[in-house]
Amino acid sequence: MMTENPKFAVIGGGSWATAIAKMLCVNLPEIAWYMRNASAIEHLTNYYHNPNYLSSVEFDTKKLRLTTNINEAIAYADYIIFAIPSAFLSAELSHLTESLDNKVIFSAIKGIVPETSLIVGEHFHETYHIDYQNIGVITGPCHAEEVALERLSYLTIACGDANKAKIMAKYLSSNYIKTKISDDIVGTEYAAMLKNIYAIAAGMAHGLGYGDNFQSVLMSNAIREMKKFIKKVHKMKRNINNSAYLGDLLVTGYSVFSRNRMFGNMIGKGYTVKSAMMEMSMVAEGYYATKSAWKLNQTYKASTPIIDAVYCILYEGKEAKKVFKKLTDKLD
Amino acid sequence: MMTENPKFAVIGGGSWATAIAKMLCVNLPEIAWYMRNASAIEHLTNYYHNPNYLSSVEFDTKKLRLTTNINEAIAYADYIIFAIPSAFLSAELSHLTESLDNKVIFSAIKGIVPETSLIVGEHFHETYHIDYQNIGVITGPCHAEEVALERLSYLTIACGDANKAKIMAKYLSSNYIKTKISDDIVGTEYAAMLKNIYAIAAGMAHGLGYGDNFQSVLMSNAIREMKKFIKKVHKMKRNINNSAYLGDLLVTGYSVFSRNRMFGNMIGKGYTVKSAMMEMSMVAEGYYATKSAWKLNQTYKASTPIIDAVYCILYEGKEAKKVFKKLTDKLD
Repeated sequence: MMTENPKFAVIGGGSWATAIAKMLCVNLPEIAWYMRNASAIEHLTNYYHNPNYLSSVEFDTKKLRLTTNINEAIAYADYIIFAIPSAFLSAELSHLTESLDNKVIFSAIKGIVPETSLIVGEHFHETYHIDYQNIGVITGPCHAEEVALERLSYLTIACGDANKAKIMAKYLSSNYIKTKISDDIVGTEYAAMLKNIYAIAAGMAHGLGYGDNFQSVLMSNAIREMKKFIKKVHKMKRNINNSAYLGDLLVTGYSVFSRNRMFGNMIGKGYTVKSAMMEMSMVAEGYYATKSAWKLNQTYKASTPIIDAVYCILYEGKEAKKVFKKLTDKLD
Repeated sequence: MMTENPKFAVIGGGSWATAIAKMLCVNLPEIAWYMRNASAIEHLTNYYHNPNYLSSVEFDTKKLRLTTNINEAIAYADYIIFAIPSAFLSAELSHLTESLDNKVIFSAIKGIVPETSLIVGEHFHETYHIDYQNIGVITGPCHAEEVALERLSYLTIACGDANKAKIMAKYLSSNYIKTKISDDIVGTEYAAMLKNIYAIAAGMAHGLGYGDNFQSVLMSNAIREMKKFIKKVHKMKRNINNSAYLGDLLVTGYSVFSRNRMFGNMIGKGYTVKSAMMEMSMVAEGYYATKSAWKLNQTYKASTPIIDAVYCILYEGKEAKKVFKKLTDKLD
């Protein structure tokens, strides 16, 4: 596994998976890339572009070992990067016949596994007994769309084993990707998950007619709330204002393209949760994250008025307008 | 002075002064309002609107003691709020014949007094020997335009004397303004000044073609840099992620309406400093702030790569593109 030329596999066919495949292809002669959509593979093979996501990115397909068989990709690689929505992770993993022993598993998923209410790193640790030395996280702030455009972006690579984080960082780096390593696998992944909840809150506020002044107060409170929450989950010395935490919160919370923010915006404008979901034809990660974070916090008991507000609205049918009115008194 | 019904004066005729006058009129039967523009006063008196700034705001002019004589306003009031560009403060104060003794001076100015390179609170303290117990700061995050629209906004009121901060907070509060008090007069005012430099940097980055991913990394680095800088200037326990620091940075750094961000944007796009200034017909506060902060930091020696980069571009004629290329290596 710790050969001089480690092999990499990307699991997933969405925009973030496509962005990661693009990054790796800068530095590697070959990668395995699993996606379940056979027609997307066919299109990639014939036309060098993923038809559905970041379709402007051209691939040198000689470098791609494309497969619709997750086991093939896993058998091939030393480093496996999961970049599928957390809601589909369990289903994908149920097809596994290949062992994950001696593999290094990186999560590029920003969410909670609904079946276990665990973040992805924890899920692999608990369910597949993978040592934290072999578990890592790839985190932003990074919109995949800007990777497609080769706009300068910074990634944080966290792993229990610093050497493995360095290897991953090395193969993701390029003239438009700068990387930084971290030992905070739990904190960075929680931050990536929690920021989606705050993006929903930002969208709700916008939909309700709150302006930029309030948005900045919301983000200022959100980062303080995130710090308290993560500290309860995994206490260690971390600077919450580093890019992996604050930067990631901002890039999502201020993005008009974020699915989570859009979802919140619709609810702020008066859509029901159900109709907002249907309208988006895809569930925003933050929807599940909200429930899990709220449930978790019944144990941790951090003060999380923003998460509580989003939870009330999404899961208890409370009226967004009223909930936010109350929330504004708790912010400062 | 500490009467039960303190009197207030607003000094300035711009948008922030107009917003503050509006806030005070919610709670007070009368305020003094000084502006040097006689025709604006005439317009206000006849048509109930400031013709030049926040012209949608209607005033109950029976409440306004409008004057073009700064001494009249000062003689009238116990609490005096200065809300004029820092570049004009010295000139305005040179007309002073009234004493400032026994007055409480609040600064709603976000900048450095060019003549003394001091923030406004320091300037009053050093030049007019006013005790810090009688000096305060009114700080955002708050775009005046959103006050005009009565969109919920949060202000932080800092004063050496907590009671005076409370009084100011009380008279600014309303159903759309929430206030918080602080004892960090130096830190909040430095934050308000420094954020304009970071807004220039954000504008430059945008003008140079950097995207949202980079912007979030820039803001994440900016708040860390701001924390280090302010700590050197005035060490005390403060949470840099409070609204008065981080919130204020975000509302400006993400605003497409910020003059400072616009100024930076033009320079990023290739305008010279001079032509950008001419184009804007008004100097962005951050232009002076950059020089002062940079100079100050020759003593403090905080690590401030972003301020240094903006300084190089604005004052040493360095090419923005090259300076930012180097800066990106220092951020993380």
